[in-house]
Amino acid sequence: MPAIRDVLIWDSERGDAERGDIAIGEDGRISDICPPRSAKRDILFDGRGEAAAIPGLVNSHTHVSMTMLRGLAEELPLMEWLQKKIFPVEERLLPRHIRSGAELALLEMIEGGTTCFADMYYFMREVASAALSFGMRAALCRGLTGDDSQKINENLNLAEEFGGREGRIIIQLGPHAPYTVPRDALARIAGIARDKNLGIHFHWLETEGELEKFKEKYGKENVSPSDYLEGTGLLDAPKLLLAHCVWHPVDELERLCRPNVTLVHNPKSNLKLGSGYAPLREMLKSGANVALGTDGAASNNKLDMWDEMRSAALMHKGYHKDPTLVSARDVLRMSTLSGAAGMGFGDVGLIKKGWQADLVIVDISGPRYVGCGESNLPEFLVYAGDASDVRATIVAGKLLYKNGRHLTADRDEVVAKAREHRQEIMK
Amino acid sequence: MPAIRDVLIWDSERGDAERGDIAIGEDGRISDICPPRSAKRDILFDGRGEAAAIPGLVNSHTHVSMTMLRGLAEELPLMEWLQKKIFPVEERLLPRHIRSGAELALLEMIEGGTTCFADMYYFMREVASAALSFGMRAALCRGLTGDDSQKINENLNLAEEFGGREGRIIIQLGPHAPYTVPRDALARIAGIARDKNLGIHFHWLETEGELEKFKEKYGKENVSPSDYLEGTGLLDAPKLLLAHCVWHPVDELERLCRPNVTLVHNPKSNLKLGSGYAPLREMLKSGANVALGTDGAASNNKLDMWDEMRSAALMHKGYHKDPTLVSARDVLRMSTLSGAAGMGFGDVGLIKKGWQADLVIVDISGPRYVGCGESNLPEFLVYAGDASDVRATIVAGKLLYKNGRHLTADRDEVVAKAREHRQEIMK
Repeated sequence: MPAIRDVLIWDSERGDAERGDIAIGEDGRISDICPPRSAKRDILFDGRGEAAAIPGLVNSHTHVSMTMLRGLAEELPLMEWLQKKIFPVEERLLPRHIRSGAELALLEMIEGGTTCFADMYYFMREVASAALSFGMRAALCRGLTGDDSQKINENLNLAEEFGGREGRIIIQLGPHAPYTVPRDALARIAGIARDKNLGIHFHWLETEGELEKFKEKYGKENVSPSDYLEGTGLLDAPKLLLAHCVWHPVDELERLCRPNVTLVHNPKSNLKLGSGYAPLREMLKSGANVALGTDGAASNNKLDMWDEMRSAALMHKGYHKDPTLVSARDVLRMSTLSGAAGMGFGDVGLIKKGWQADLVIVDISGPRYVGCGESNLPEFLVYAGDASDVRATIVAGKLLYKNGRHLTADRDEVVAKAREHRQEIMK
Repeated sequence: MPAIRDVLIWDSERGDAERGDIAIGEDGRISDICPPRSAKRDILFDGRGEAAAIPGLVNSHTHVSMTMLRGLAEELPLMEWLQKKIFPVEERLLPRHIRSGAELALLEMIEGGTTCFADMYYFMREVASAALSFGMRAALCRGLTGDDSQKINENLNLAEEFGGREGRIIIQLGPHAPYTVPRDALARIAGIARDKNLGIHFHWLETEGELEKFKEKYGKENVSPSDYLEGTGLLDAPKLLLAHCVWHPVDELERLCRPNVTLVHNPKSNLKLGSGYAPLREMLKSGANVALGTDGAASNNKLDMWDEMRSAALMHKGYHKDPTLVSARDVLRMSTLSGAAGMGFGDVGLIKKGWQADLVIVDISGPRYVGCGESNLPEFLVYAGDASDVRATIVAGKLLYKNGRHLTADRDEVVAKAREHRQEIMK
C-alpha cells in the first residue's frame, strides 16, 4: 500500500501536529494513519521527520487561463484596466490560448501545493481537460453574462461531458456578477442549478462602486444585497460560491450562514485592484463558511496560496490594529477544508481515514523552520512558510509533483508553448 | 575580468531593462556594461537571456538574531507578546545565540537576494563577524536603552573595531526608541554621532499608543514629533534611519525631507503586530528618502524582501482604494538605492560603472514570468516574483550564493547549530 512516511501531520481538526505515516488505499483515499516509520514499502515520499503533511491547498476562486494576461497592465484604475487592457485581449483568446494559460497556471499551483481550484472563464472544456490531464481536482463553470441561453447550454454541456469525471471534476453554473447578468436570468440560472443539482459560482460585490450601483437600482424597491441573493434563489442553490464579498453589508453576513453557501476571500486581488478590505473578521465571526482564493493572475499576480494565506492573516490584523484576529489556523482551514466543502468535495480537506489523499508535503528542515514543532506547525507554515518549501503534491493518492519535478506535465514544453501563445495574443 | 553574462539589467535609474553583460573589476565594482554575450571568460553567472540582474536587495531595518525567537509566540497583543514572551527569552540570550540567529538570518537573506541590511540588537560583535564572514554588507548598531554610558561605549568600541571593515561594515549608534531612551540621553547620543561622524538607527512612532504617550508627555510643552526629533539633534545626525514611522503626523512629513534622513517602512511587521498602516503614499509624495525593511523574524516572520516589496506595493492600494499608488518601481527603489543611501553606502544600489557590484540574479524562465520582458520587468519581479527565483547573490563582486548553494557558509551546519541553540534558550 502506498504511503507517506515519517511526516508531521496536521489538518484543521487537530490542535497539535502528529508525527506519523499516512497509508493510501488503491482508491486514492487515506486508509490509515500509522506510527512514524512503520510503512516499509511503496513509499511515495519519505519525510525523515523533516517534512510536514497537510491537506492539499484549495484555491476557491480563480480564472486560471488569465495567466496568459499576467502583467499585461499594472497600476491602473479597475475600469480602465478591465476595459482598455483586459477585455480587448480577451476578445482575441482562442481555445488554444485558454488551454495554454490553464496549463501554465496548473504548473504554478501544483508547484505550490494547490490540489484543487474553483474556476470561472470560457472555453472551459480546455480547462477541464487540462485539470484532468495534470491530475488536479477542480470545480469549473462557464462564465455567464447577459441572458444568454447559448452560454447556459454550453455550461450544461460542460456538466454533461465533464461532471464527476474521475471523481475530480465538479461542474458548476457560472453567472458572472449581478451587474452583468439581469436579475431574471439569475433567477432562471438558480432554478436550473436546483433542478440539475449543480453548484453556482458568482462574483459578489467586489467593489464599492458595485454596491453603490446596486443601491441605486434596488434601493427604491427596498431590496438589500441579501434580499437580492435570496430573491433570485441563488441562496438555495445546492452550493453557492460567492467570490469577493468585499462590500456585502456586515450586518447581513448572518443571512449567508447556510451550509450550502461559501464566501470566498481574495485578499491580494482586492488589494491590488484597490477594491478594499473584505470584512473577514466579521465573516469568520458570523459562522459562515469562508474560503480563500487568488483570483486570476492578471490581478494578483500569483496563484500562490501561501502568499494568499499570509496576506489574509496579516492584512486584517493591521487594518483593525489587532494582532489576535484571523489566525494562521483560520486561514489554513479556509484554504483546505472550507474551500473543498464549499465546492462540494465533501471528503477533501482533512487527513483522515476514508478521506481523499489530497496532500502537500512541506520541507521543514530549512533555516525558516528552526523552532517549528508539533505545537506551532500551522503558525510556522503561514507566517514563515513559502510555496517553494513544497516538496510533493498529491491528489487522490497520485503524485503530481515531487522534489522539483512534475510527474504529470512537461514543464518546459508548457512554458515554451505559453510563450508562443502570449506573443500571438499580444500582436 | 569576472562578468555576469547575458542578463536583463534593471535598476531604479532605468525605464526599460537592457540586455547585456556586467563586467566586474578587481575592486569589486562594476567596471562596464557590455553588449550581451560579449564576455567570454571568468563568467560568474551566465543568464542565457533567461535571467535578470537587479541591484542587491537592501533590508533597512531588522534584528537578524531574532530568528532565534521566530514563532515563539503568535497572535498576541503587542505588549503581551513583548513582555511575556520576547523579553524573558532575550534575557537568556548569550553571544553564541546571537551569532547563531544572525547566521540563520544571513542564510535566509542571501538565498532571497538580500545583500545589505541595517541591524540593531546586542552582542553586535557577533553580528558584525557573521556579516563579514558570510560576505554581506551591513550597517550595525548596538541597541541603546536608558541613559547608559556603558552601552554607548560598547557601541563606540564596535565602531572602532568594525567600522569600515572590508568596505562592507558601517557602524551606527542605536538609541532604541523615544520611550526607552530619555530625551537628554538622545541629545547626548546625537551629539556623539555628529562628533564621531556616525549614523543613527532609531525606532520611531511604531504604534498609536506610543504617539498617545508622546502627546501626553510633550503636548503640554507644545513639542510635536518633528520638534522632538529636531530638538534632540537627531535630525542633524550624519545619517538617520527612522524605522516604522507609522504614526508620524502626515502634515509633518516634510520636515523629514532631508538628504541625511531615511524613513524605513516595515509593512509586514506593522500588520502582524497590529501597529497599523504607515502613510507610505504620503511619505513618497513628500519627497523624503523612503526605504524598506522586514523588522525581526519574531514579528514578520520572514526576512524576505520580495514578500516585503509585494506587501508594500499591495497594501496601500487596498487601504486607499487606489490601484495606481505605490508602484512596483517605487518599492524596488526603496529596496535598493534608497536603503543603501540611507545607511551611508553611497555607491550601492545601481548597476552602473564604478558602483559596487552588489547584484541579484533572478531566473525569469519559469511559469510566472511568461510575458515578462524589457518593458515590464520591475512589475513582474514585484507582483509575480519570489525569493525562490533568486539564482545568485553577489556582494562587492563576490558570489555568496549560486544555484541553491552557499559559497560562504555551510548551510546544514548553521541550521543544526541554530536548532541546538534554540533548544537551549527554550529550556
